[in-house]
Amino acid sequence: MFPDRLAEAAAEIGAALEAALAGKADQPVIHAMRYALQGGKRLRGFLVLESAALHGISRAAALPAAAAVEALHAYSLVHDDLPCMDDDDLRRGQPTVHVRWDEATAVLAGDALQTLAFALCCEPVLGPAERRLSLVAALAQASGAEGMVLGQALDIAAESAAAPLTLEEITALQAGKTGALIGFAAEAGAILAGADRGPLRAYAAALGLAFQIADDILDVEGDPEAAGKRLGKDAGAGKATFVSLLGLEGAKARAKDLVTIAELALAPYGAAAETLRDAARFAIARQS
Amino acid sequence: MFPDRLAEAAAEIGAALEAALAGKADQPVIHAMRYALQGGKRLRGFLVLESAALHGISRAAALPAAAAVEALHAYSLVHDDLPCMDDDDLRRGQPTVHVRWDEATAVLAGDALQTLAFALCCEPVLGPAERRLSLVAALAQASGAEGMVLGQALDIAAESAAAPLTLEEITALQAGKTGALIGFAAEAGAILAGADRGPLRAYAAALGLAFQIADDILDVEGDPEAAGKRLGKDAGAGKATFVSLLGLEGAKARAKDLVTIAELALAPYGAAAETLRDAARFAIARQS
Repeated sequence: MFPDRLAEAAAEIGAALEAALAGKADQPVIHAMRYALQGGKRLRGFLVLESAALHGISRAAALPAAAAVEALHAYSLVHDDLPCMDDDDLRRGQPTVHVRWDEATAVLAGDALQTLAFALCCEPVLGPAERRLSLVAALAQASGAEGMVLGQALDIAAESAAAPLTLEEITALQAGKTGALIGFAAEAGAILAGADRGPLRAYAAALGLAFQIADDILDVEGDPEAAGKRLGKDAGAGKATFVSLLGLEGAKARAKDLVTIAELALAPYGAAAETLRDAARFAIARQS
Repeated sequence: MFPDRLAEAAAEIGAALEAALAGKADQPVIHAMRYALQGGKRLRGFLVLESAALHGISRAAALPAAAAVEALHAYSLVHDDLPCMDDDDLRRGQPTVHVRWDEATAVLAGDALQTLAFALCCEPVLGPAERRLSLVAALAQASGAEGMVLGQALDIAAESAAAPLTLEEITALQAGKTGALIGFAAEAGAILAGADRGPLRAYAAALGLAFQIADDILDVEGDPEAAGKRLGKDAGAGKATFVSLLGLEGAKARAKDLVTIAELALAPYGAAAETLRDAARFAIARQS
């Protein structure tokens, strides 16, 4: 069953992240990093492991890359939750880092989690230096001012914009905010194998968008307890979302189409990519 | 003259940083990144170029590494200046990023500047992938939870501590806060050349501490206009500094001793390291 496989991978990735922080200083900033790394579905890390498996790379040899993408994701959540950003008090069912500690600790813990992500990409078990360096470059591309940070900046700008975003604008925003890191995760196996990244790039582009549409649907009709975070805030803030632009049924239909596109993009891999197809279906069926 | 050489390198590094952001999106976060990268002495970048020259590496082949350390340094200043951290309004004689834009933009610009630093370490001109990967690993080591971020966290913790820090504690704090990145800069040439990092590590350890003692002296007797930032704030906040612990004359004598130690550490390189010796002398003679 897919949820079992995801949970199993999540446990392995969680252990790798614990190990990466083992022996670090007994300081609030380190405790906050550890706290921010707990929980979560680890879907991005799972994509790394499955993309690696598709290229004949063992889980052990891909694990630091899976941990890296989760560390990067955790940093982005800690900073996005800050009062000056989305101002969220709850994340993964727990108080956010700046609530549990303070804003300074949250800024620093996020900063150090980004650094940790790049450090993890240097782990020798990942293979030849050239491949690891490609991984570093791809992570920088996905997370920086052309990827995730740009998406978050566009999202914040949208809050004070005169008019709600158009469908085209929100698609561009989400391609950065969530799509870029999902793209990195899905392509990581191809990068580590030195293989063609094309099919996985196409898969991830569709999956990333489906994932975000599902998030917007969850924001409207999800269960806050299952989601572990505040819901309904986008609609409350009058922000344009895929649901406000396409309607609830339209958004669901679009997400389903995108999952089909994601599945088709994996055709070159045949049956070997079945778990990645499961992951795409999971992305729009999840409750959190 | 040393100041001319430093200014010349600063111009080259500034141009490299401009080029790294050329063509990026016309968004406030990108403008803020560009703004944060302007000005400064570029002493860290200069150390990279001189450490490279010592190992027969041309300026052109070391320039992205020099730009990387300055991008990393700029990110740390943007985040350290935030209201939840040191709450500074002025930096390099200009309003800080969160004053000129807002806190969200400052957090995101800092985040993207850290990413940019790692992206710059991947530039092919820096040499074989293995060396570039070593550079990435060294930068992660210097900037993360074992280096710069830990130092800043200790500094913030010290503000609410019951007793002022001891000389030993403040030395450990500064080894992280400023020493780690100066160490990376000084060792970068040896990393890129695959050479022994020992002598430059010893040089940087002494230089980094001398640099911070000089900062504490400047905070007491510097000219705010020349420094381009608020001065006297450590003494005003009752914080322990090298000056409060050693006295003004004691701090000056210690800084001078450390420069001598830094100079001696360069003995294996003979006359070829004269500019790095000049840099150490400059570190305690500067007015900003």
